[in-house]
Amino acid sequence: MQNLLNKNEVGVFALGGLGEVGKNMYVVEYQDEIIIIDSGILFPDDYLLGIDYVIPDYTYLYENQDKIKALVITHGHEDHIGGIPFLLRQVKIPKIYASGMAVSLIKNKMEQHKGFRANIIEFQEYEKLILGKLNISFFRTNHSIPDSFGVVIHTPEGVIVHTGDFKFDFTPTGPDANYHKIADLGRRGVLLLLSDSTNAELNEFSISEKEVAENIKVIFTKIEGRAIVATFASNVHRVQQIVEASVAAKRKIAVYGRSMLRTVEVGKDMGYIKAPAGTFIEPHHINKYPANQMTIICTGSQGEPLAALSRIAAGSHRQIKLMEGDTVIFSSSPIPGNQQGIEKTINMLFRRGANVIINSPLTDTHTSGHAGQQEQKLMLKLVKPRYFMPIHGEYRMQKIHSQLALATGVKKGREFVMDNGDVLAVTRNSARIAGKVTAGSIYVDGNSIGGIGNIVIRDRKLLSEDGLLSAIITVNKDKLKLLGKPVIISRGFIYMKAHTDLTNEISDIVEREIVKKLSSMKSLNINSLKRLITRILNEHIYNKTERNPMIMPVVMVVE
Amino acid sequence: MQNLLNKNEVGVFALGGLGEVGKNMYVVEYQDEIIIIDSGILFPDDYLLGIDYVIPDYTYLYENQDKIKALVITHGHEDHIGGIPFLLRQVKIPKIYASGMAVSLIKNKMEQHKGFRANIIEFQEYEKLILGKLNISFFRTNHSIPDSFGVVIHTPEGVIVHTGDFKFDFTPTGPDANYHKIADLGRRGVLLLLSDSTNAELNEFSISEKEVAENIKVIFTKIEGRAIVATFASNVHRVQQIVEASVAAKRKIAVYGRSMLRTVEVGKDMGYIKAPAGTFIEPHHINKYPANQMTIICTGSQGEPLAALSRIAAGSHRQIKLMEGDTVIFSSSPIPGNQQGIEKTINMLFRRGANVIINSPLTDTHTSGHAGQQEQKLMLKLVKPRYFMPIHGEYRMQKIHSQLALATGVKKGREFVMDNGDVLAVTRNSARIAGKVTAGSIYVDGNSIGGIGNIVIRDRKLLSEDGLLSAIITVNKDKLKLLGKPVIISRGFIYMKAHTDLTNEISDIVEREIVKKLSSMKSLNINSLKRLITRILNEHIYNKTERNPMIMPVVMVVE
Repeated sequence: MQNLLNKNEVGVFALGGLGEVGKNMYVVEYQDEIIIIDSGILFPDDYLLGIDYVIPDYTYLYENQDKIKALVITHGHEDHIGGIPFLLRQVKIPKIYASGMAVSLIKNKMEQHKGFRANIIEFQEYEKLILGKLNISFFRTNHSIPDSFGVVIHTPEGVIVHTGDFKFDFTPTGPDANYHKIADLGRRGVLLLLSDSTNAELNEFSISEKEVAENIKVIFTKIEGRAIVATFASNVHRVQQIVEASVAAKRKIAVYGRSMLRTVEVGKDMGYIKAPAGTFIEPHHINKYPANQMTIICTGSQGEPLAALSRIAAGSHRQIKLMEGDTVIFSSSPIPGNQQGIEKTINMLFRRGANVIINSPLTDTHTSGHAGQQEQKLMLKLVKPRYFMPIHGEYRMQKIHSQLALATGVKKGREFVMDNGDVLAVTRNSARIAGKVTAGSIYVDGNSIGGIGNIVIRDRKLLSEDGLLSAIITVNKDKLKLLGKPVIISRGFIYMKAHTDLTNEISDIVEREIVKKLSSMKSLNINSLKRLITRILNEHIYNKTERNPMIMPVVMVVE
Repeated sequence: MQNLLNKNEVGVFALGGLGEVGKNMYVVEYQDEIIIIDSGILFPDDYLLGIDYVIPDYTYLYENQDKIKALVITHGHEDHIGGIPFLLRQVKIPKIYASGMAVSLIKNKMEQHKGFRANIIEFQEYEKLILGKLNISFFRTNHSIPDSFGVVIHTPEGVIVHTGDFKFDFTPTGPDANYHKIADLGRRGVLLLLSDSTNAELNEFSISEKEVAENIKVIFTKIEGRAIVATFASNVHRVQQIVEASVAAKRKIAVYGRSMLRTVEVGKDMGYIKAPAGTFIEPHHINKYPANQMTIICTGSQGEPLAALSRIAAGSHRQIKLMEGDTVIFSSSPIPGNQQGIEKTINMLFRRGANVIINSPLTDTHTSGHAGQQEQKLMLKLVKPRYFMPIHGEYRMQKIHSQLALATGVKKGREFVMDNGDVLAVTRNSARIAGKVTAGSIYVDGNSIGGIGNIVIRDRKLLSEDGLLSAIITVNKDKLKLLGKPVIISRGFIYMKAHTDLTNEISDIVEREIVKKLSSMKSLNINSLKRLITRILNEHIYNKTERNPMIMPVVMVVE
């Protein structure tokens, strides 16, 4: 970085969060100080077969760990805190600042990753953290989890504002966003704004959580059987709305799904979830109450196969058997990629006689936690930044967000649509892309980091399409002789027991060609035999089946 | 079937198309006569890894082929005609009736499957086919391909109406739907209606093709660079609208993508696509014209990786390099499952400086070819059927459609939400589910039918998640001795070259345990050795990696 930045320049870049929704990690660097904002994971799309999640490449932070003053967490969602255990394995982080709900969730997470100590410090809304040349303060925002904050980085060159994830909700279920502090920052002058781009494609002002609550209440009055509500476990405010609607409708509540149970537990502890004594009942007591006196709150709004709602829909849930008159409410919207799974779940629910209510412009049983265009413009108007960097979004969202910035007064050329690793160098009166630091994606599968590279992913893709075909031969090293017949095995290709002709045919050809090849060799060349097998199988199989399974040639050597 | 139906009952069932959108195939049977309506394929969802398409199980038709009088085709979409070549391989079909565009497309298809002769007869709109006790007439509908028809089956017990795929468009680009014939059928009395359920979830009257055309025209007037329009190749009317908008804007047209080129060719031949001479230019002449005088019509509206638009977006298209000012219009909507691919394409288009306009309530650059709830109710009102069977849809769509039927006058208990294979037996005054015939899904991969079963699909799923790990040993059969060290190979698991410790460790354990096992054997038991290897690998690998690759144990036997 020393070679990228001039001495008075502040470097601002992302190691994750640009060109994607996920693994948020933003870095502000000035001379010998680094502040990190957020440390998230990304849930992989369908293209990353078998990968559990993706984290940023931490190389830059590892190489500059002496400069790191603090990691500051904006809020407790996985795409902002999920990477912390992995980060701590590789990089020394002296202090992690977080607030409220995020503190609980991070501590919970660290308990599952013993051996890595985190120095977690709870910040207060009006606190100013004096860390050195870079200092930090906060402003409260509205979002789909309590205790969400924007971060203000006070640098010698000016103020940098990072919105965190935000929306504006004029009738929120929790406290208001701190409009006045945001406006005051703008009045005093902001050098650079980094703002949430997630919903930049939506030309709207997102509806209020209160409106969703009202809609759910109205629906509850019309349901004759049980009310089964699926929503995101992280949305504590929404869960409380459902609780209140249940209390108003004189319904008891049972909670299902591990993450939903944890949300309710943490939410109760922290006072975000409140209900009269006796409202919550034990899951196994559910059949003690008439159907029209029961609410079920559960996970599975994304059609995840192992979640509570999916098991209810499939008829495999131990405690809940659907009955005529039950109504399932999706208080959620589909995350891209989950559409098909959700539709399968809905079909199964209908088959079991349940009514299903999904979020739509007619029902409004859900609202996003992210600002639509109107709110993004309000943020831009309040903050009035000199420079603008759209963050937290795919490229098209960043691009549209930058157009909104220009439309609301940011001067042309002062908007920076960047990729992970691109370094913006700012001073009080200049900004330039100074270069690039190491940034990338690390795939995490099981408990292993980095063991999964692009080769493995490519192999899984190939295997998933046409399966694998293996020919295995045993040769005597000294006599250059084939021992026994080549064995042909497949997985995920075609059902081989129904195709013994094909198997025998391939085995015969491989045998004949290998014997010929061996007789021409002076000493054993294993790779040459493998190449021969691969070639024979590729050609022969494609001719016969028009498929391209992955070929795995194996040569066993006996001395 | 003889045992399912009484002599005077008409059997009506689907071999495909119920509980799914795709592989439509409906059967009407009366005594010794069978009429088949449509023979489609289904494009598999993400769960069917590597499968090209799915066709119905034709067993019932094979076993009753002597009864088959005709296959009647409602229109030329793949989910209605794509199965014909596969059907003809297995079942003797004396006559295939189709009309206009469908005839061209079926003939085109048969040329690619030489060796199977199809007796294709073109029917006329007002023709009545006298086939025996079951006779056929037609009524024109609106849909997203020209020459779409509903089918009327005249049976001794009454009239059965099958809508085909339909919508009502009061300002269509082709001819009107035949409202009067439909109304006349209703006036005279319809026994059973089978109606398209695709958009039963949409509480709307779908917008007109003319409105879409107007919107595209207006957009064209605002585009400064090239207009690049991606749409479904089968939507000939839409292509003509784009052609007219181009002519109005004085733009030349170049066409890209194999299926789009075929559409334009067939459409011109049949008179559905018309333009002044010189409007269409050769693709390689595209750079001879200023950007604001060019329209590009291409495939790829679903983000298909190999389609023209995807290659344009990726910068790998031979002839089209995107320029600042180019505008890409998606005159299409995402088919569930394609969302992520489309979003990737849009991101790439933005990165190359193109503007992107997608279909939304603000732009309306696309309209569905299927009836929304208002049109479904209009059909129900006009036809006034005694009995109702929602077809062409997933379960939830069928279910909602059946509720619309009840709301518009069908009597409770006379609506039948059925699965493929369920047989409805109707007479002039009765209807009952009489039982079930063989129905199911056959997976087609490459050129092979039926070679792919559920085991293969399950294996591909496992392979796609954690890959494969194989341990291979060679043993001497007579001496019961292990020859050489066990070889450990993997694909799609972890990158083994980076994990030689793990590989060596597993090899050592397998060696030790196999030697022990062999010494306890009296004669070689290969399966016992395989089971041992599988157990060792499963346990050891999960402990070390928390992953579950597919284990493939191989025992090579040398005599």
